[in-house]
Amino acid sequence: MTGYTATVTVRLKEGVLDPEAQTTKRALERLGFELDGLRSADQFELDVDAESADSAAERAEEMTERLLANPTIHDYEVAVEQR
Amino acid sequence: MTGYTATVTVRLKEGVLDPEAQTTKRALERLGFELDGLRSADQFELDVDAESADSAAERAEEMTERLLANPTIHDYEVAVEQR
Repeated sequence: MTGYTATVTVRLKEGVLDPEAQTTKRALERLGFELDGLRSADQFELDVDAESADSAAERAEEMTERLLANPTIHDYEVAVEQR
Repeated sequence: MTGYTATVTVRLKEGVLDPEAQTTKRALERLGFELDGLRSADQFELDVDAESADSAAERAEEMTERLLANPTIHDYEVAVEQR
């Protein structure tokens, strides 16, 4: 077994409203910054022991689909690195 | 001017308690998953127009220090890509 860190990034799907990001963008604009867009995402770093990077990625995907993301409104990506 | 997307990842500093991550880890364990650790982070994708990637990164850092991160408890990193 080897230690891996799976980084899961959970984003809202294109078209899903993100009031938090809109508020953050407006707050930055009020501070004088110009920006064309702002999207927010949640990131989870999962430390897991697994036989291979593929199996660590598979476990991280299962955890994401069971708990971390809501497939109705979220897309996600998983990146695995050896610890 | 070129369009860039600056991805800012804001993490809690080592040693700062993260009750949300602890709760998420316990919930995953209750679902039967084994994991050694879980850290959460916020990610912001900022679309900005700038003269160069360096200047886009500098603007993203200013925005992060003014609003997106709290230097007392957060570390952050910025990655810039051309849009």
